Amino acid sequence: MTTQELTEQIFKKKSFLCVGLDADLDKMPTYLLSEKNPVFSFNKAIIDATHEFCVAYKPNIAFYEALGVDGWKALKKTIEYLHHEYPEIYTIADAKRGDIGNTSRMYAKAFFEDLGFDSITVAPYMGKDSVEPFLEFTNKHTILLALTSNEGAFDFQTLKTDDEELYKKVIKTSQKWNNSENLMYVVGATKAEYLAEIRKIIPENFLLVPGVGAQGGNLEEVCKYGMTKNVGLLVNSSRKIIYASDSSNFAEIAGAKAEAMQRQMATELEKL
Amino acid sequence: MTTQELTEQIFKKKSFLCVGLDADLDKMPTYLLSEKNPVFSFNKAIIDATHEFCVAYKPNIAFYEALGVDGWKALKKTIEYLHHEYPEIYTIADAKRGDIGNTSRMYAKAFFEDLGFDSITVAPYMGKDSVEPFLEFTNKHTILLALTSNEGAFDFQTLKTDDEELYKKVIKTSQKWNNSENLMYVVGATKAEYLAEIRKIIPENFLLVPGVGAQGGNLEEVCKYGMTKNVGLLVNSSRKIIYASDSSNFAEIAGAKAEAMQRQMATELEKL
Repeated sequence: MTTQELTEQIFKKKSFLCVGLDADLDKMPTYLLSEKNPVFSFNKAIIDATHEFCVAYKPNIAFYEALGVDGWKALKKTIEYLHHEYPEIYTIADAKRGDIGNTSRMYAKAFFEDLGFDSITVAPYMGKDSVEPFLEFTNKHTILLALTSNEGAFDFQTLKTDDEELYKKVIKTSQKWNNSENLMYVVGATKAEYLAEIRKIIPENFLLVPGVGAQGGNLEEVCKYGMTKNVGLLVNSSRKIIYASDSSNFAEIAGAKAEAMQRQMATELEKL
Repeated sequence: MTTQELTEQIFKKKSFLCVGLDADLDKMPTYLLSEKNPVFSFNKAIIDATHEFCVAYKPNIAFYEALGVDGWKALKKTIEYLHHEYPEIYTIADAKRGDIGNTSRMYAKAFFEDLGFDSITVAPYMGKDSVEPFLEFTNKHTILLALTSNEGAFDFQTLKTDDEELYKKVIKTSQKWNNSENLMYVVGATKAEYLAEIRKIIPENFLLVPGVGAQGGNLEEVCKYGMTKNVGLLVNSSRKIIYASDSSNFAEIAGAKAEAMQRQMATELEKL
């Protein structure tokens, strides 16, 4: 999906919500566990109940890997279901990969070709040749970690390098890489006050913003500092939507939570 | 496996060789492709032919993920084979993971519990709370990327932060984290001249050194600057051993390559 198509979906649905599909067997309604494929059953119910209110889904790959072969099967089934039932929805593999060139190429193949994701999150520590194999897929997006939502972001990302903080250096340097027009960046909602600075460097690129919800970020602030005239934001919520309830009507409640966020987003979009 | 047990194996085998199991169907002997599980057949043949000469195996997870569900099955079968046939061998999941706390916990579960690896490589960009969930497994090692073997290492890792290069900051800061005694570090063989500086900060920790072989690093230099009285090195070679030949006697030739490296290592160990 191109950036333009994603933007069109955002304006059409009045939503820039991304729902995180963090499939955790310990948090799902227990009655699902006796099903043949509990993770897929859970995801399907969540997707069916929330798809009207969001433009993207983001399975966090760790949760699937923790389930081994069954987890990979559930991931594949989930992405196939999305492609088949809701092809207008943008998909993000939250994988935070990054390795030397020939290895990053393998990860790109895994997530872009075999699973058919529209995008993947990538860690920048290993530099240009670890990221460019992802950027070679010019019909896909590569979402580089810039300033993450967690406390540990202050360990290295905000260190002052020669002339500016590391996360700024990451953004500026990556803008010079091949096919950098396909870059998006992860910036945590918990760091909303940094968004104004970031927008000076990348006025147009999409940002994937986790941390609204369970981690305490504020949607209004994110929009105030981060929104562009083409929106330029995908705001993710995982636990606060998908685990809002563990009762038999969990999907309905997740849908209501997603709808509430969509309404807030519609209000923000009216300000454009 | 404890650090001490690993060290004992190194002295016993006169080898600190780690063989990288980068299972690439494009590079394997073509006759294997018609087998039911070509990746496992390849790995088994390589392991049987090289195990005498190495102390560790390091499957690079990207190569397995690129094969989807079949890849995960082959990875599981490979690690089970190692545990069963050669329990004295140390195992490294070369995964370069790292995410917010609850997600890193899932990756730790996947690689330490479900697959039973002795260690995993982890990227430091997201800081303390992204790494400590791995360190909580006190009977395992967490191998943090410090200075990697690729060209892109110079994009961010060697940037001067307040007072020193980022990779040094990563090493120093991580030494203050919980259970830091279980940390090892990745330092590329192509950056051997940096090892003397690194040894000033961490005189004892094990280093996982990729980049000897196909990437051009030099074993003698790595040992000169990086070896401690307890060795403290695992030197990895992947392509140069496992893809030395694609003929029907590929395993035998891989064994000979591994033996040649073991002999060089024995010479280096005599200098201790």
